[in-house]
Amino acid sequence: MKALPTLEELFPHFAKLTPEQQAAVCDAAEERHFPKGSKPHRGESDCSGVFLVRRGRLRAFILSETGREVTLYRLYPWDMCLFSAYCVMNSIRFDIHVEAEADTDVFVVPADVFDRLQKASLPLSHYVNKLMAERFSDVVWVMEQILFKSLDSRLAAALQEHRELAGSDVLDVTHDVLARDLGTAREVVTRTLKYRAAEGMVSLSRGKITVLDGEKLGKLAERPEK
Amino acid sequence: MKALPTLEELFPHFAKLTPEQQAAVCDAAEERHFPKGSKPHRGESDCSGVFLVRRGRLRAFILSETGREVTLYRLYPWDMCLFSAYCVMNSIRFDIHVEAEADTDVFVVPADVFDRLQKASLPLSHYVNKLMAERFSDVVWVMEQILFKSLDSRLAAALQEHRELAGSDVLDVTHDVLARDLGTAREVVTRTLKYRAAEGMVSLSRGKITVLDGEKLGKLAERPEK
Repeated sequence: MKALPTLEELFPHFAKLTPEQQAAVCDAAEERHFPKGSKPHRGESDCSGVFLVRRGRLRAFILSETGREVTLYRLYPWDMCLFSAYCVMNSIRFDIHVEAEADTDVFVVPADVFDRLQKASLPLSHYVNKLMAERFSDVVWVMEQILFKSLDSRLAAALQEHRELAGSDVLDVTHDVLARDLGTAREVVTRTLKYRAAEGMVSLSRGKITVLDGEKLGKLAERPEK
Repeated sequence: MKALPTLEELFPHFAKLTPEQQAAVCDAAEERHFPKGSKPHRGESDCSGVFLVRRGRLRAFILSETGREVTLYRLYPWDMCLFSAYCVMNSIRFDIHVEAEADTDVFVVPADVFDRLQKASLPLSHYVNKLMAERFSDVVWVMEQILFKSLDSRLAAALQEHRELAGSDVLDVTHDVLARDLGTAREVVTRTLKYRAAEGMVSLSRGKITVLDGEKLGKLAERPEK
């Protein structure tokens, strides 16, 4: 098994911190394991700290009052989850929830330690800036998809993404997961998939979706706006 | 007439910059006037610099391939428009457009000057961070509204906002402006307004909407999700 990345490797601009700052990071960081399906972060009430992903996959989403979910982005090894340190981001006024989509190992840097460091280190402050701009772009992309693309086309794009994640045409993904990715109801996903199955683009079986015509799927995913 | 705020007053943490940095801001900043209806910034191709609003009102929006608009947020005097300095925000991958909704006066600080300053000044870097988090929150709010609220309720919220902007129950706002705020078609706005007019909540006349029942409007705006 490949060794997981170390804290020094994962922490942004670690080498540019002073020896005291480096020691503060190392003293405060904790190794944590999040089993697949667990929810390591639940909105505003929960100030978990910054997650540095060593292994696995995290999904960040927003949640409506009645429990509807919309996926905003996913985090992979070497990514940093800033919004789980909600309490230090004074100007963030929305709740992000985080779910482990695979068995996931992270370092958690407590929010107050991270905040002190970003207030003292210009390279770290820039990094946070850059990261926030990237996530902002992700979220605007999701919004553009929701506003400007048909569900059919967005579902095709989601299947493409899961195909890339799986590295296979056989996708171990439920209609429920796709519905949460797209911010719609499971029934709508099922109906659309059945339509595409009747056409021969995919085949459906219990808990699995097999892509039969990847080229058609790709075209559908890139179809211009509704 | 009240004097407009000065550059020293508007520029974030001006007093914390070094004398050289202060001089760089003052030398580079330009006064600009944007007449009502003009579009001072048009997406990626346009690197206008950072706008510091002295007077008036700017609307930031995204634009679909077929020309549909969705309002993300509005900027008022003392606000700073970061995304009009697109080219310096390397990690921003979406296009923001800006329209003057009233006769607007700004200082423009060229993007390269602003970028050098934020790379050298920790207080300024923090300020950019905070500002981006605020805009990020605005955009997530808009997305939550679009996903989780009915159009009827969102239209009521938009009317409430224009009521506060105008300080009056008589709103000088077209169905087109409301449609762009909500990311929907003008016809849909007109239909919904007619329904509410028939109920006596509003009355409609050429280019004007008068709120007759503010309490009912308020309740509708806060109605839980669809």
